[in-house]
Amino acid sequence: MSSIDFSKVLVAQGGGPTAVINQSLVGAVLESRKFREVERVYGAFHGVRGIVNEDFVDLTQETTHNLEMVANTPSSALGSTRDKPDLKYCQEIFKVLRAHGVGCFFYIGGNDSSDTVRIVSEEARKDGYPLRAIHIPKTIDNDLMVNDHTPGFPSAARWVAQAFAGANLDNWALPGVYIAVVMGRHAGFLTAASALGKKFPDDGPHLIYVPERAFFVDKFLADVKATMDRYGRCVVAVSEGVSDENHVPIAEKLAEQVERDAHGNVHLGGGGLADELTQLVKTKLGYKRVRADTFGYVQRSFVGCVSDVDQREAREVGEKAVQYALWGDRDGSVTIHRTGFYSVDYHLTPLEQIAAKTKVMPDEFISPSGTDVTDAFRMYLRPLLGSGMPDAFRLRLNRVPKILT
Amino acid sequence: MSSIDFSKVLVAQGGGPTAVINQSLVGAVLESRKFREVERVYGAFHGVRGIVNEDFVDLTQETTHNLEMVANTPSSALGSTRDKPDLKYCQEIFKVLRAHGVGCFFYIGGNDSSDTVRIVSEEARKDGYPLRAIHIPKTIDNDLMVNDHTPGFPSAARWVAQAFAGANLDNWALPGVYIAVVMGRHAGFLTAASALGKKFPDDGPHLIYVPERAFFVDKFLADVKATMDRYGRCVVAVSEGVSDENHVPIAEKLAEQVERDAHGNVHLGGGGLADELTQLVKTKLGYKRVRADTFGYVQRSFVGCVSDVDQREAREVGEKAVQYALWGDRDGSVTIHRTGFYSVDYHLTPLEQIAAKTKVMPDEFISPSGTDVTDAFRMYLRPLLGSGMPDAFRLRLNRVPKILT
Repeated sequence: MSSIDFSKVLVAQGGGPTAVINQSLVGAVLESRKFREVERVYGAFHGVRGIVNEDFVDLTQETTHNLEMVANTPSSALGSTRDKPDLKYCQEIFKVLRAHGVGCFFYIGGNDSSDTVRIVSEEARKDGYPLRAIHIPKTIDNDLMVNDHTPGFPSAARWVAQAFAGANLDNWALPGVYIAVVMGRHAGFLTAASALGKKFPDDGPHLIYVPERAFFVDKFLADVKATMDRYGRCVVAVSEGVSDENHVPIAEKLAEQVERDAHGNVHLGGGGLADELTQLVKTKLGYKRVRADTFGYVQRSFVGCVSDVDQREAREVGEKAVQYALWGDRDGSVTIHRTGFYSVDYHLTPLEQIAAKTKVMPDEFISPSGTDVTDAFRMYLRPLLGSGMPDAFRLRLNRVPKILT
Repeated sequence: MSSIDFSKVLVAQGGGPTAVINQSLVGAVLESRKFREVERVYGAFHGVRGIVNEDFVDLTQETTHNLEMVANTPSSALGSTRDKPDLKYCQEIFKVLRAHGVGCFFYIGGNDSSDTVRIVSEEARKDGYPLRAIHIPKTIDNDLMVNDHTPGFPSAARWVAQAFAGANLDNWALPGVYIAVVMGRHAGFLTAASALGKKFPDDGPHLIYVPERAFFVDKFLADVKATMDRYGRCVVAVSEGVSDENHVPIAEKLAEQVERDAHGNVHLGGGGLADELTQLVKTKLGYKRVRADTFGYVQRSFVGCVSDVDQREAREVGEKAVQYALWGDRDGSVTIHRTGFYSVDYHLTPLEQIAAKTKVMPDEFISPSGTDVTDAFRMYLRPLLGSGMPDAFRLRLNRVPKILT
């Protein structure tokens, strides 16, 4: 392979937006501009689709000030895509990169995006095209291999924890059963984050169902009843992806219409699972006040709920990607490794170890009951949520003696 | 009526929780403790139900420090209730108040709670029982008569605005149709607050449907199509209570099972309306990417999204209620009146002007199209959202000339 011409570098964002994905973008752009080899930093408009469509924007013309403001704005500032390039798609990518003299490609995204980088990297090598391709991690699902955790997850986890802290207080004031469905097809990290909204011993969520454990309807109903018997109320956190013992998603079983995106992922949104579980509890257990929410798109790009730790790390993986590309000699994925309580370091990991693989919660994070998290998980997650987490307080409720009864 | 014995005062919270209802509670408790006539401040556990059950807690024993922490905690710290007292219920209330020597009753709540205060006040007068009864306003629906706005609404409105700011960015990154259903049976204030999440001219929500205007399915579909044609994407905010020209709620039409609470209110939660509108858009307009969320309970008690203006005012209505009770000579409801841009003052308004009545959005707040708000509404709402509202920024997207095409 001839030496890489770094005069033009290209950044793109793929997959679902997060609260901090623009930190990585801005980290990559500003770091690139520090290298004298780099003359232009291009951005692909709407991910790889923007590359094949030759939809580039010149990020070199952005002011540093506006870039810093964009870094603090959630969602993908360059636009995103769900496209997953095959061989033909990658050949189109090469044609465009070659025509524009792009020598370095940064793609910020999750499992699917890392697989895209892997394919592009391999096709470039086969093609003899001198390209440096680096994957920058991002996903609220926290399901990338090798990584201790992934940028975007801590802020989404903070949102979920704060939402459950409030939902628990609401349920305490007006008791009954409350069920909230949280994003997560295969990995339960985000649903498990609901446990970080608990403070007092009787706080909810009282029951947490993650995709790592089979979901049995009868067991669920028995769990709810036991909680109601004990506390007179019950707050439930459940992953959208919970499945039965045969790995059939409960939501898919219930959905009348199933929709699949280009990656073959079933779309699990909508009120389906939440509404169905509500009806189950009402009809089988007879409780009157049963309420449910599906935490939808707000949990991944809510403006104004972000972890400062997540912001810093998302910025750093963007910066490190550029350093690995410009000072290094291989393609790869930037990975986050925990080194203390709490500190991290970054490595460049071979793409094959990340691409299209899914990490799930380790057993040590799930309680033996299968409906709670362990202290190991709390230790794992708490530092990621960042500073300034709101706290809930209670009256001490000194009872006044009854007179009439 | 003989003179009132203020040595024991009672505070209760009713209806749905808000982010700042405990500010009013703490305002009333701390202000009461400044009056030498007051020896004990009781709290009723779970509203009027706590009174008839003689479930009182002694708030005089609370530390000021913990009260301040509770004030900053969302949801009803004393617990709440949906009970609506009738004559018999009120006679039970009197019996308990008399037995405990309670001379002053503060009830923090919305329309239904103000009606409870009105009934209790009238029954006390009929009964010759010397009671001072004051209603302290609270409702995220912002639908109390006489009031410029009501405590709890500004914080919920801020949540809705921030949620739409994020949803708009998400929809910009991955274009399609996005629909979010917002709380509000009869008044569209909270749904209209979504407009305050807009910044750039093409930002969503592009369409806002409030209960004050009849909802026609064909018109809705035409609006969505026109927006998609113009922007290639469409963000919709719709009140859960939108109704057809015959005042039949769209959600009720679609709901298989209708549930009513003790006040005769139909429960409109769940994914029904959002899912049904999604199916409509998919089947009638053929768009592939159509997503919907129902903003459920999180919008009223999310921990960590609160307006500081709302906090201050909620505290003040609690304080003023005590001053009106101890220094005044009549029952009533504390009302908020706007006096500047932005300043407010408080009055004690006869209960009959508030109780069981509903304020809706004035015509001047709704655009002639019926699917947007006016600048008058923006002027009305913006100061209520408080300080530190997050802001969204964009790249300036300087396009790079295409080479191949």
